[in-house]
Amino acid sequence: MSTMDRALTGQARLLAEGHVTSPRGFRAGGAYAGIKTAGPGVLDVGVLVSDGPLHHVAARFTRNMVVAAPVTASRARVAAGDVRAVVVNSGCANACTGAQGDANAEEMARLAAARLGLRPEQVALSSTGLIGSQLPMERIAAGIAGADPAADGGERFARAIMTTDPRPKMAAAWFEHGGIGYTVGGVVKGAGMIHPNMATMLSYLTTDAPVPVPALDAALGRVVERTYNMVTVDGDSSTNDTVLLFANGAGGGELDEAGLRAFESALLVVCISLARQIARDAEGAERLIEVTVQSAVNDADARLAARTVAGSILLKSAVHGGDPNWGRAVAAIGRSGAAIDPARLRLSVGGVLLFSQGQPVPFDRRAVEDAMRGEDVTFAFDLGLGEGEATAWGCDLSEEYVRFNSEYST
Amino acid sequence: MSTMDRALTGQARLLAEGHVTSPRGFRAGGAYAGIKTAGPGVLDVGVLVSDGPLHHVAARFTRNMVVAAPVTASRARVAAGDVRAVVVNSGCANACTGAQGDANAEEMARLAAARLGLRPEQVALSSTGLIGSQLPMERIAAGIAGADPAADGGERFARAIMTTDPRPKMAAAWFEHGGIGYTVGGVVKGAGMIHPNMATMLSYLTTDAPVPVPALDAALGRVVERTYNMVTVDGDSSTNDTVLLFANGAGGGELDEAGLRAFESALLVVCISLARQIARDAEGAERLIEVTVQSAVNDADARLAARTVAGSILLKSAVHGGDPNWGRAVAAIGRSGAAIDPARLRLSVGGVLLFSQGQPVPFDRRAVEDAMRGEDVTFAFDLGLGEGEATAWGCDLSEEYVRFNSEYST
Repeated sequence: MSTMDRALTGQARLLAEGHVTSPRGFRAGGAYAGIKTAGPGVLDVGVLVSDGPLHHVAARFTRNMVVAAPVTASRARVAAGDVRAVVVNSGCANACTGAQGDANAEEMARLAAARLGLRPEQVALSSTGLIGSQLPMERIAAGIAGADPAADGGERFARAIMTTDPRPKMAAAWFEHGGIGYTVGGVVKGAGMIHPNMATMLSYLTTDAPVPVPALDAALGRVVERTYNMVTVDGDSSTNDTVLLFANGAGGGELDEAGLRAFESALLVVCISLARQIARDAEGAERLIEVTVQSAVNDADARLAARTVAGSILLKSAVHGGDPNWGRAVAAIGRSGAAIDPARLRLSVGGVLLFSQGQPVPFDRRAVEDAMRGEDVTFAFDLGLGEGEATAWGCDLSEEYVRFNSEYST
Repeated sequence: MSTMDRALTGQARLLAEGHVTSPRGFRAGGAYAGIKTAGPGVLDVGVLVSDGPLHHVAARFTRNMVVAAPVTASRARVAAGDVRAVVVNSGCANACTGAQGDANAEEMARLAAARLGLRPEQVALSSTGLIGSQLPMERIAAGIAGADPAADGGERFARAIMTTDPRPKMAAAWFEHGGIGYTVGGVVKGAGMIHPNMATMLSYLTTDAPVPVPALDAALGRVVERTYNMVTVDGDSSTNDTVLLFANGAGGGELDEAGLRAFESALLVVCISLARQIARDAEGAERLIEVTVQSAVNDADARLAARTVAGSILLKSAVHGGDPNWGRAVAAIGRSGAAIDPARLRLSVGGVLLFSQGQPVPFDRRAVEDAMRGEDVTFAFDLGLGEGEATAWGCDLSEEYVRFNSEYST
């Protein structure tokens, strides 16, 4: 975590457990409908609903120019401004599916709305899974009927949105303002195809704080930029990425400027936790790679540099082998496009300085090898140029990743 | 190969065999000096010398901001304009090596110049291998002494520059102008860390045609853009990339505009062959991926789109498994940054149309699986937007690649 992240998150506390139904006034659930190929018990349809009193929503969607039907449908609903629920299926992406795909997305929203006593325009939706197949609508309908949203259903919802994730990813944080304690909760799915600009990532975030829509949207934009857009697994971005943030005001009270800052701190804490969970749980990965860049010319350069290093396939392979091949990290930052002066660049791995003033520093190879074989491997660059800083997260690249992704659709 | 590549290369013929000493007036050689860890017989120092009468040279170097000592030294020599030879070692990159690295690079040029009867400023140099170690100068000296450049030494030179390449990569082409036949020859090394902007790639090109320096430089720029900059293996670019093109005029005669066009055709033929050899021989790769993009808004967009698809790790994994997961190709082109209208986009794999007008086309799955299990797998996009076109080359991603790159330095 960079110095700035530490400062920004200082006002909020990460909770040991929690998810989308940790804040008051949210219900969630999940059902097995046979859309994923695995057997019963593997949930694949999830529903999350906000009971208000406020229905404030902010969202971010994929920047891919090929966009799945549910993204088109959800984008319009968020713009219209009265989204109160979301229905999600895993196992089929409903992407590259033409007019039939659009019709199926609308029907999926209609089915969920009917079940929840809402209008179809009040239900956002997401799909994730294989591209190019039509949704099995009977199974979607059965899943919606069985999802059974409840105040303790956040974990079931987190399981229902999983594709190749080895476990559900959930987090919650707490902040206090004006004598009231508020909670921010979240879930995320995404294990492959994760890259800056949100990749195949679905995330749903909730809070019982009364955050006005403009502030909610601005906070989400800033936090996504620092978290989900700083995670890279394999360089591929998806057609379906969606982040939805619901604020229902169920905690009551009012947030002034300081309250909004505290809310954003809590949101950042939750999303950092979820971003790290994505990187750690990536397909085939055994290690989390954390890359911090300090003293870049500006934050944009720092982000570019950090993401490029975290995404370097050669470096990811070296980390997989526990090999202190720091030259790959220096080569990656050099090609990142960020301004670099090799004579000023310093690189530490696991806290051990390896490179300074344009050349290698003698180091204890055993200490660095140990650092590279831990669960978290940290690469810390100091560029010596300015005030910019950023953190990016990635993971090692394993034979298992390749095996897995060469067998996915067949 | 795109339509334009076919038109441009129409004036030249690829030869069945050939390399840097196929054109008249070049000598090359290689020696074993123990710089690479493998045993005797594995050449690791190479020398290539032009005997004139002309000493025209053009070059392109890495765009990485961290640049190896031999690149700095060679760039200055090419700018000074009288380069007559190049000395290359494999096994050590002389990158991130500070002032000692610069001094070693100069000494390496001095040793080669003394042996060849040239001035040190007339000898360019390259190093490739592990980053962050100093050159073993005694072994470099021994290698230079033993390299023994000769008119039949092109293949030895090609072997000496290899790192993890499974075989030497060589090509030559022939063209005729004004009653004289001329040859263009080339070698290249590079098996990992290959990406647009030339990655860890060293290439040396020779011709006996009397090409003036400005025309030589312009032709090299255009050809590199269409070939080496369109090869992607793993997204990493190196600190050492170098392409040197020598024209010695040993064939005599003179080239007018038509002659220069014929020369560029031959250069393109050689570099397309070498680019394809790089992709095919990439670390752990079993298949060549060729991505053509037609009807993009412009050539720049077409290149961006083709390179992004060829570099998609998910697609590379699917190709490794022979899995017709075309959705990954569509998702990759969608995130490439090129202008795309999904409703106009058409994708064929191995000549079979799979996607058109925003949705999948029913196809013979067996035929596509067969196409994906061949040595060459072709993805052909038609964007339906304009006149831009490009071809990019990549390879499948295998478990072997990961295994290899997790064990490289240790």
